[in-house]
Amino acid sequence: MQSRSERIFSALTDPVDAILIMNGGANFADSTFKYVSGVTRGGYEGCSAVLRPGTRPMLVVSMLEEESAATAPDCDVTAFKTLAIQQEILKTILGTPKRIGVNSTAIVHSKVKLLEELFPDVKIVDAAGAVSQARLVKDDIEVDLVRRACRVTSDVTAEIPSMLREGMTELELATQIDREVQNRGGRAAFDTIVCFGRNGSEPHYSPGDVPLRRGDMILVDFGAQLHDYCSDITRMFVFGRATPEQRAMFDVVHRAQSAALEITTAGKPAKEVHRKVVELIDATEFAGRFIHGTGHSIGLDVHDGGGINAASELTFAPGMIMTVEPGVYVPGVGGVRIEDTVLVAENGAEILTPVTKDLVEVEA
Amino acid sequence: MQSRSERIFSALTDPVDAILIMNGGANFADSTFKYVSGVTRGGYEGCSAVLRPGTRPMLVVSMLEEESAATAPDCDVTAFKTLAIQQEILKTILGTPKRIGVNSTAIVHSKVKLLEELFPDVKIVDAAGAVSQARLVKDDIEVDLVRRACRVTSDVTAEIPSMLREGMTELELATQIDREVQNRGGRAAFDTIVCFGRNGSEPHYSPGDVPLRRGDMILVDFGAQLHDYCSDITRMFVFGRATPEQRAMFDVVHRAQSAALEITTAGKPAKEVHRKVVELIDATEFAGRFIHGTGHSIGLDVHDGGGINAASELTFAPGMIMTVEPGVYVPGVGGVRIEDTVLVAENGAEILTPVTKDLVEVEA
Repeated sequence: MQSRSERIFSALTDPVDAILIMNGGANFADSTFKYVSGVTRGGYEGCSAVLRPGTRPMLVVSMLEEESAATAPDCDVTAFKTLAIQQEILKTILGTPKRIGVNSTAIVHSKVKLLEELFPDVKIVDAAGAVSQARLVKDDIEVDLVRRACRVTSDVTAEIPSMLREGMTELELATQIDREVQNRGGRAAFDTIVCFGRNGSEPHYSPGDVPLRRGDMILVDFGAQLHDYCSDITRMFVFGRATPEQRAMFDVVHRAQSAALEITTAGKPAKEVHRKVVELIDATEFAGRFIHGTGHSIGLDVHDGGGINAASELTFAPGMIMTVEPGVYVPGVGGVRIEDTVLVAENGAEILTPVTKDLVEVEA
Repeated sequence: MQSRSERIFSALTDPVDAILIMNGGANFADSTFKYVSGVTRGGYEGCSAVLRPGTRPMLVVSMLEEESAATAPDCDVTAFKTLAIQQEILKTILGTPKRIGVNSTAIVHSKVKLLEELFPDVKIVDAAGAVSQARLVKDDIEVDLVRRACRVTSDVTAEIPSMLREGMTELELATQIDREVQNRGGRAAFDTIVCFGRNGSEPHYSPGDVPLRRGDMILVDFGAQLHDYCSDITRMFVFGRATPEQRAMFDVVHRAQSAALEITTAGKPAKEVHRKVVELIDATEFAGRFIHGTGHSIGLDVHDGGGINAASELTFAPGMIMTVEPGVYVPGVGGVRIEDTVLVAENGAEILTPVTKDLVEVEA
């Protein structure tokens, strides 16, 4: 089996002497460091992975995390105490490279400038496409980890009806959901979205002090991260009985999501799935109210590379893991989104979040 | 009072037509977006803030978060549906700029390349120093928010002795601490570090399935993020009675931390504080066992700019908020670190995490 590093080199169109995966500060770590090293947990702030064709990855890590890095399978490890020493190590390892690949969407600009200073004659090559292509198709270990993260979200989703109380706030419900994720060994993969009533009209709404009222439609969008791998799910509830208007909005999205899932399979261009969803929604009273992409790749990152949208050049292949999440949003009224995480297979897609996607009416 | 955007321009050495704060994917958001806009919560993935001298910041945000962005005080907001439209908006706002500043340590390389494509004759100027300098000195709103985050960590630290049970794992204790942070409205500012016994020898150790045994020394390093602002604290415990060896290690660090706090004040070069700590530890049996910097600025980010280390060029000024956290680490034996978050003042430094820093012996 190809190593993950070899998968990246295989996907490269332009040859390079090495690919440097370089983490910036705490908020700027490239999860590709974890992808190539196989380490789980840990921040590896300011650390680097040096990938060269035909060799094991070399992890250049801070002494603060040297013992953890040593657990990485099939990697060599060297530790630095200061940034100056790290630079000397990189020069020693790399010599006088002519071409260095970087993951341009996940490396801060200052690190690229540093490479240009350390290696004056080097040409920086964008390897982001190759990294993304390698990571899009998950290996068996990764599929298993996403599956486990999805099980957490499914189990927690099933508990949501029992959490609802009149007058509770969006933030309180979000916190309860996060706790149930923690009870199962995970943590929130992103800020949990809980919208009561008309707040559902903003897709990336942040939950606030809004109290739950009888008749509210409830949108919950959350994910679990477990051993670094992520899941993502959105489900809809009504606190009481759904009105005909609520049900009409829900039904359109439900039909669109089902239609998208039906045609999600290996060999299908992602944009055709998106087009199908747009056509279906635009043929209803909610025309123009679907304002985002249909889905995204998910793995070590919640947004893990490719997307399902109008501009996507992605063609589905077995082993890709995607979200499928159409929605409609009416400012002042509310919104509906239904989302599953799915594993693309030769014939169809396996839903990894198989908890009911009905509009669940919860007795108020 | 100067706006935060004006503070950044005041700190610039080279003039620019505009500074672009550009968020990348979910893991690559520049907290400077929140600094200049004053928005709290929300991810603003792929969004930008355009700063120009003498004008209000212009937030260029996704339609997914348009309603939230509209709550930003003293900002203008424009929304995009696709990346292509965002680019058109930036071209319309900026015209034909000659010089654009970027925050090079918090912008991904691909965004800089995009700017070079959108504006062929532009010169990209590194504004990271000015951004950092502006953010290093907190304004009253920021000091209040860090103070509140610190209160959460102090209160939770006081609860730690009552959480300890023989046989509990490091991960279980870390989860309980995170929950108590949540109970107070915050969330973990970074992965909570809990080390039992000899695991304390790795400064950035990740808690695992190791059970608590009688006689273990316990290192807990955690922070709370509340309304986006962070706190950071490290305290030491013993499950039972401390041995003379444990106490000797603790006492050295305690003396070093006290000595550092004594000389932390406006006008003092940060590296002198670090030098003092190194000298003090290197004069003991733990010479060479202090392997990281003495502290770092903290605010919207846990590592918020400057540091207290040998290479630091920082001179303390009133309103800076720093951690002070010497430690010693002996592989195979364990480690000790004591850390406070402090507010630099004209005469001294106010400890914002005033919970006891004794070596707390907890009855086993």
